[in-house]
Amino acid sequence: MEEDAGTLPSKKDFSAWYNDILWRAEIMDVRYPVKGLYVWYPFGFAIRKRVYQTLRDLLDVDHEEALFPLLIPEHEFMKEAEHIKGFENEVYWVTHGGRNELDVPLALRPTSETAIYPMYALWVRSHADLPLKIYQIVNTFRYETRHTRPLIRLREITSFKEAHTVHATWEDAERQVEAALDLYRRFYDRLCVPVLISRRPDWDKFPGADYTMAVDTIMPDGKTLQIGTVHHLGDQFSKTFGITYEDVNGEQQYVYQTCYGISERSIAALISVHGDDRGLVLPPDLAPLQVVIVPIIVARRRDEVIRAAGDLEEELLGCGLRVKTDLREIRPGAKYYHWEMRGVPLRIEIGPRDLDGGVVTAVNRYGEHAAISRDQVAAGVADMLASFRDQMREVAETRMKEHIRTADSLADAAESVKDGVVAVCWCGSAECADAIEEQVDASILGTDVRSSEMMTSAGTCISCGRTGALALISRTY
Amino acid sequence: MEEDAGTLPSKKDFSAWYNDILWRAEIMDVRYPVKGLYVWYPFGFAIRKRVYQTLRDLLDVDHEEALFPLLIPEHEFMKEAEHIKGFENEVYWVTHGGRNELDVPLALRPTSETAIYPMYALWVRSHADLPLKIYQIVNTFRYETRHTRPLIRLREITSFKEAHTVHATWEDAERQVEAALDLYRRFYDRLCVPVLISRRPDWDKFPGADYTMAVDTIMPDGKTLQIGTVHHLGDQFSKTFGITYEDVNGEQQYVYQTCYGISERSIAALISVHGDDRGLVLPPDLAPLQVVIVPIIVARRRDEVIRAAGDLEEELLGCGLRVKTDLREIRPGAKYYHWEMRGVPLRIEIGPRDLDGGVVTAVNRYGEHAAISRDQVAAGVADMLASFRDQMREVAETRMKEHIRTADSLADAAESVKDGVVAVCWCGSAECADAIEEQVDASILGTDVRSSEMMTSAGTCISCGRTGALALISRTY
Repeated sequence: MEEDAGTLPSKKDFSAWYNDILWRAEIMDVRYPVKGLYVWYPFGFAIRKRVYQTLRDLLDVDHEEALFPLLIPEHEFMKEAEHIKGFENEVYWVTHGGRNELDVPLALRPTSETAIYPMYALWVRSHADLPLKIYQIVNTFRYETRHTRPLIRLREITSFKEAHTVHATWEDAERQVEAALDLYRRFYDRLCVPVLISRRPDWDKFPGADYTMAVDTIMPDGKTLQIGTVHHLGDQFSKTFGITYEDVNGEQQYVYQTCYGISERSIAALISVHGDDRGLVLPPDLAPLQVVIVPIIVARRRDEVIRAAGDLEEELLGCGLRVKTDLREIRPGAKYYHWEMRGVPLRIEIGPRDLDGGVVTAVNRYGEHAAISRDQVAAGVADMLASFRDQMREVAETRMKEHIRTADSLADAAESVKDGVVAVCWCGSAECADAIEEQVDASILGTDVRSSEMMTSAGTCISCGRTGALALISRTY
Repeated sequence: MEEDAGTLPSKKDFSAWYNDILWRAEIMDVRYPVKGLYVWYPFGFAIRKRVYQTLRDLLDVDHEEALFPLLIPEHEFMKEAEHIKGFENEVYWVTHGGRNELDVPLALRPTSETAIYPMYALWVRSHADLPLKIYQIVNTFRYETRHTRPLIRLREITSFKEAHTVHATWEDAERQVEAALDLYRRFYDRLCVPVLISRRPDWDKFPGADYTMAVDTIMPDGKTLQIGTVHHLGDQFSKTFGITYEDVNGEQQYVYQTCYGISERSIAALISVHGDDRGLVLPPDLAPLQVVIVPIIVARRRDEVIRAAGDLEEELLGCGLRVKTDLREIRPGAKYYHWEMRGVPLRIEIGPRDLDGGVVTAVNRYGEHAAISRDQVAAGVADMLASFRDQMREVAETRMKEHIRTADSLADAAESVKDGVVAVCWCGSAECADAIEEQVDASILGTDVRSSEMMTSAGTCISCGRTGALALISRTY
């Protein structure tokens, strides 16, 4: 719907690159006339569908999908004290229906604990009902007063996947937290997006939770983006909403709960981690189009080339690949530009010389060429897509590692944090946290880091010199 | 999550049956604490997913899916005079964000013309951009003051599929109206739900449209349920929102538009048209579970039977069927009851006698038994499912025809309309419409009826005796 005009800014200027790629690759239109609300173009939406199908596939193994209402009556929303404190400045309120003022104002869900848990109080009866694992994918709302940014900081989060589980014991819920982290790790592995998993400091946990684990990735500008959270809710909400079960002895017990969410920030990460100066780079599993065939037409052998491209398309479609032949009457170079911008993992060029040689020329999105024998094209394409995905994962992981440094002094940390995440030792005290955050000019991202490559041995706190443990510091989105 | 207790009311008492089946078959929970908002249970949501995937499959042939924001600023919403008159009493307004009053009140979309068309004004540039065919599946809101009913009359319509197309000429848009009707016909054919297609009288058309075509079905109580509408919008909205294109001569022209929608009423129809006194009856393509295997266990040969059931399940799963073996420690009869309630099209019983005879016993949801040779089980099951779907379609069509009568007097019509739809002749005047609607105590559903079986020849108006044409009258939901 938009003409390509001009070029994409270099990714070195990440903010300009990000804003530009969203419309050049037809992900989102930012011109909707309300701050913080954006429109998904069809191409962007096709990526969204694949990303969320990937998430559903992982969840559906042992979760069930359901759907709860958007509107939450004020009296339910206001029940959990910590929770409301965390959200009251960000909630949109519906106050009128037609010309009438409503008796009870209705909140647009910022998250659905207070919509779901009154129903859980009705649904959970006995230990045989546990564990209960339900998720929904919905739009949620935050009245953001800060600077908004498509896919990252929104007033309508269009694609919030939130899971809510119920367990008999605190320990069962704790195991579910770990299972959810594992699921999120596998999800981001399919997106080839490397992640850092850590435990948020107490002042940064979900309002009402016992503790919060978070999944972050590092953006090209070195800032971290939170792309998933998992909360152990203890029995706070079950006590508020009266969610109890009859145990094996016939006694009523309060349940323990977890909830965990992923939003369209997953797509912001997908775009930002992999994209380059020529546009999107998409993993083959997530790309709406996996292979584009560009016929190289010379007048004399036009029909022959077009026929060969059509046959090739049919053969690859028959293998279950998402393929398209670009027959537009424009230069091949313009086609390359167009499909590179949209992240198509593999381009196949087929011209008279290829026909004569019994080959096709395949070029992956990194620009690596290979001649594939026409006889072996299905296997050759499958191999190239598989190795391209592995390459993407490797490139992203290497790049993330380059953005992680260790520091053993505040001055070191302040310098290193400009370029990424800094691993330090911290004693765990609030005073030192304040001192670190102020002097390093960044946030304590988390502790209890889940990474085989991070040092886990104790050291001395970079602020006070007492014994401390690993903590990550970063500038955050 | 709920225990079956008591029995389903007879479908003869349709209203009681409908309310009851929703929770007994785990479709919806109506206990959410706001009028007109309901919760989709996982099983109901699984049906919803299949129904909407069917719709997507049909649309994706030549439409693209996108997503536009829920919140519409007051100034956009108020632009089209007819449109706002039609909706102003039904719109929910967001007036506050946190504790602040918003500068511009935001409407929760009751439908998305005023959210989408400002973007179309930016997107459509030239004749080469036309036709544009986009759809979205979203939640929409109506402040209903009438009696609400799950899936039928809601305050949050959770599953509104709305398509919005743009064309160069009025005639192109008219052709799209017919294409959309054809698509809806095919959609309901897959649901085995028979439909009546007609043109709504002028006073009943979509606010702002040139004309409205509607898709209705007849519910078990003889009332019609509108389950799809297709609107020719003319150039009303394009003039309001400034949607123009450059034609081949370089002149700016206003576009012509259509929009058409289907909501979760499609699922209300699916449930109501097919269900019976024992529960849901689902077409095999739409059923979350297509085949349930119930092992008939006698102690002596327990392991053998369970192993045979497992082997059978594996074989049928391998054929791409949705199958489950019910191994719960309850009586077979209780299992039959459970799965009949949930509309599973085919039950397979496998016990010692079946093993000895080299057969399995298959029972379709209408209760018809067949012995299938174990060697031929995959083909036998596929055949039974296919013929069950055909039977469902036939049963539903026969039943609908029984609910359609013709009448050539007001008294006749008043009597017949108690049991369904009445076909009459009407001169087309507003006075006669008023007279008919008052004396028959029902509504004029539509004219220009698209059915091969309806009389199309002219006759005399049942009210004034002048020349008239076919019109349908019914009591409506």
